[in-house]
Amino acid sequence: MSSYSVFFTQAAEAKSSLQLAGKPAIRKALLHLSRLLRSQQQSLLAANKTDLDRQPADNPRNDRLLLTPERIDAIAAAVRSVARLPDPTGKLLLRKTLPNKLRLRKISVPLGVVGAIYESRPNVTFDIAALCIRSRNVALLKGSIDAWHTNQEAIRLIKMALAEAGIHQGAVTLLPPDREVVDEMMKATREIDVIIPRGSDGLIQYIRRHSLVPVIETGAGVCHVYVHTKADIQKAVNIVFNAKTSRPSVCNSMDTVIIDRAVAKKFLRRLAPVFAGAKVKLLADAASFELLEGYPWLDKAAPDDFSREFLSLTAAIKIVDGFDDALAHINRFSTRHSEAIVTENKKLAEQFLQLVDAAAVYVNASTRFTDGGVFGLGAEIGISTQKLHARGPFALEKLVTEKWLVSGNGQVRES
Amino acid sequence: MSSYSVFFTQAAEAKSSLQLAGKPAIRKALLHLSRLLRSQQQSLLAANKTDLDRQPADNPRNDRLLLTPERIDAIAAAVRSVARLPDPTGKLLLRKTLPNKLRLRKISVPLGVVGAIYESRPNVTFDIAALCIRSRNVALLKGSIDAWHTNQEAIRLIKMALAEAGIHQGAVTLLPPDREVVDEMMKATREIDVIIPRGSDGLIQYIRRHSLVPVIETGAGVCHVYVHTKADIQKAVNIVFNAKTSRPSVCNSMDTVIIDRAVAKKFLRRLAPVFAGAKVKLLADAASFELLEGYPWLDKAAPDDFSREFLSLTAAIKIVDGFDDALAHINRFSTRHSEAIVTENKKLAEQFLQLVDAAAVYVNASTRFTDGGVFGLGAEIGISTQKLHARGPFALEKLVTEKWLVSGNGQVRES
Repeated sequence: MSSYSVFFTQAAEAKSSLQLAGKPAIRKALLHLSRLLRSQQQSLLAANKTDLDRQPADNPRNDRLLLTPERIDAIAAAVRSVARLPDPTGKLLLRKTLPNKLRLRKISVPLGVVGAIYESRPNVTFDIAALCIRSRNVALLKGSIDAWHTNQEAIRLIKMALAEAGIHQGAVTLLPPDREVVDEMMKATREIDVIIPRGSDGLIQYIRRHSLVPVIETGAGVCHVYVHTKADIQKAVNIVFNAKTSRPSVCNSMDTVIIDRAVAKKFLRRLAPVFAGAKVKLLADAASFELLEGYPWLDKAAPDDFSREFLSLTAAIKIVDGFDDALAHINRFSTRHSEAIVTENKKLAEQFLQLVDAAAVYVNASTRFTDGGVFGLGAEIGISTQKLHARGPFALEKLVTEKWLVSGNGQVRES
Repeated sequence: MSSYSVFFTQAAEAKSSLQLAGKPAIRKALLHLSRLLRSQQQSLLAANKTDLDRQPADNPRNDRLLLTPERIDAIAAAVRSVARLPDPTGKLLLRKTLPNKLRLRKISVPLGVVGAIYESRPNVTFDIAALCIRSRNVALLKGSIDAWHTNQEAIRLIKMALAEAGIHQGAVTLLPPDREVVDEMMKATREIDVIIPRGSDGLIQYIRRHSLVPVIETGAGVCHVYVHTKADIQKAVNIVFNAKTSRPSVCNSMDTVIIDRAVAKKFLRRLAPVFAGAKVKLLADAASFELLEGYPWLDKAAPDDFSREFLSLTAAIKIVDGFDDALAHINRFSTRHSEAIVTENKKLAEQFLQLVDAAAVYVNASTRFTDGGVFGLGAEIGISTQKLHARGPFALEKLVTEKWLVSGNGQVRES
């Protein structure tokens, strides 16, 4: 019996309350939470200030921890939009009657208890809570010690909203920010149905390696844009520039641009001034290094630069000899997140879509579109780079499992 | 670089051959394999005899290893039925056009490379190979040393069938039956997309704990039949008898019968002679022990007997005080495989279906129906008791993942 089992027991108790709650109650809880985020903004900001004051002023993570009125508004809007999403549970996925008159129904049901382990961003507390309430999953939240006061205030608002809707307050529980909690969660195979780690690649890998509870993993993106010989060069420049610079800190941003040798000179001549204007640092292979002579932030690429997710204004450049060569590079280095080709050759474009093994594969568009919101799935927990259960934007619709309901009249099996 | 990497490389090479093969080629490979299983039956039986001759004659596992003409016919029929199943890949799951004219398609695609780790049953080699070929997944098969000659002959037939259909023979590969192979497979996160362990619970748990490659797990079943106060007693006797005795060695057979106190005496008086006729051994709780006085194979249940999967003609008996008590027992001991209630009370039946957390939940029918074939899904790899990706019968339709295809005309993301 772990010292945290009281929380796990509470979670188990809340399960039926959440699963039996009517649709209006679920909606009410979320809309009320959204309102509380506005009416109780000051107390949330104050708690956040307490957390920030305990950090060194120059801690680079402070920005992740920081709440502002604008950020709280954005969180409230996100919670409201989750309230509007359709209920992913109770969907009739299949219905059939067997020759012996046994009636089968396959329906979508909540996963049960979702454990979330994340770092200092306080919006994650609200995001996961809202998605879990919407999908009738009990949530056990383990945030970081840095955000402890903010998260305590957040959970207070969440529990007020649950109470207002008549839902058991154990439906969302904030766990103490102790390291040992994580170990207990990873062992709780009977109490927790799935663990969702959110944050750095290190955190995610640690949990994937050690958890006995199944993990839904959102992964790093080493993403490529391949500029094919038949690319429209202006489109290619726009796409590469957007994929790299529009939000370099996110996983769907481009890391390496791959260029067919035949168009490399022409393309780089157009790209260089645009990239230079944004102060993009380039790590070039031998061939492109030569072509980029004079570029102000240029370095030779080390071999492992091609497997790096930069999450910053840095890009690697690789020149290849045609489609197969580009595909081989992508197969070797891709983390199977988002991959793009720029080409006017429709047949090759279709081949690229078919042969590249990634969650999202693009023709003539920026990799930056890989996103649950953009794809119309509502808020997302992250982009899954695994192949089981959820691939690509991991959103509300995947916070469920299936259940077979079988109704009979005394049927038994002959063999 | 592991010494087995040659096999992994071969698998990677075969991937596009299998994915680009036409539907007729896939079908041809499977139908040809089915024919070879008949025409080459003698060589398969001879190889099997070599394996059996190396075992002690009294090895209880010999029956699992044994092939007979009838068993080979059954395997051939199973392969033929897989050939007839619809292609689970290439399905258009969703199509939409975003306001910026970006066209999205979500399609089902093969998982990629499936690693199967299993024990001595030689039919698994053919089952997994057939399901993988049908779903265009490359298969890496790791069987047991006991079945090595049989499996070598099996893979010879499988590769003949692939060759006949013009598919790369690396599409199905038999790995050496070395222990280290398993360790290499569990680390091969870039080369293997999913590992499927098939066999004992010990094997499955070992792989689940140690694999870095995602695992699809088929689990043990501690299954209950709950005889409610309002049960039709004759139905209840038939269902309990069938669930326990029709095939006790499989995971969907009943382990514990739960009985409402109000009907316990009446029910057990009817059940006892029927169970006695089949020599079912009973492990009874205190209350039922008294009622069963004189039953020839009776013992008191130890506390952990209620969490045992017997896989034999043994059943535990538990008397409860009504619905909530029964539910509490099931929640505590169920492995979430198959659970049944026998009752004529429709409202309670519906509550049971909703509140019991299991892959398959039954009203007035035997738990023995939980099976991919019975549910109309074709051959199954096993019954999944996990909640992610596949729950319940894990069949062909779940040997796929999704992929988002995005086609544009130069679109970039604004924010």
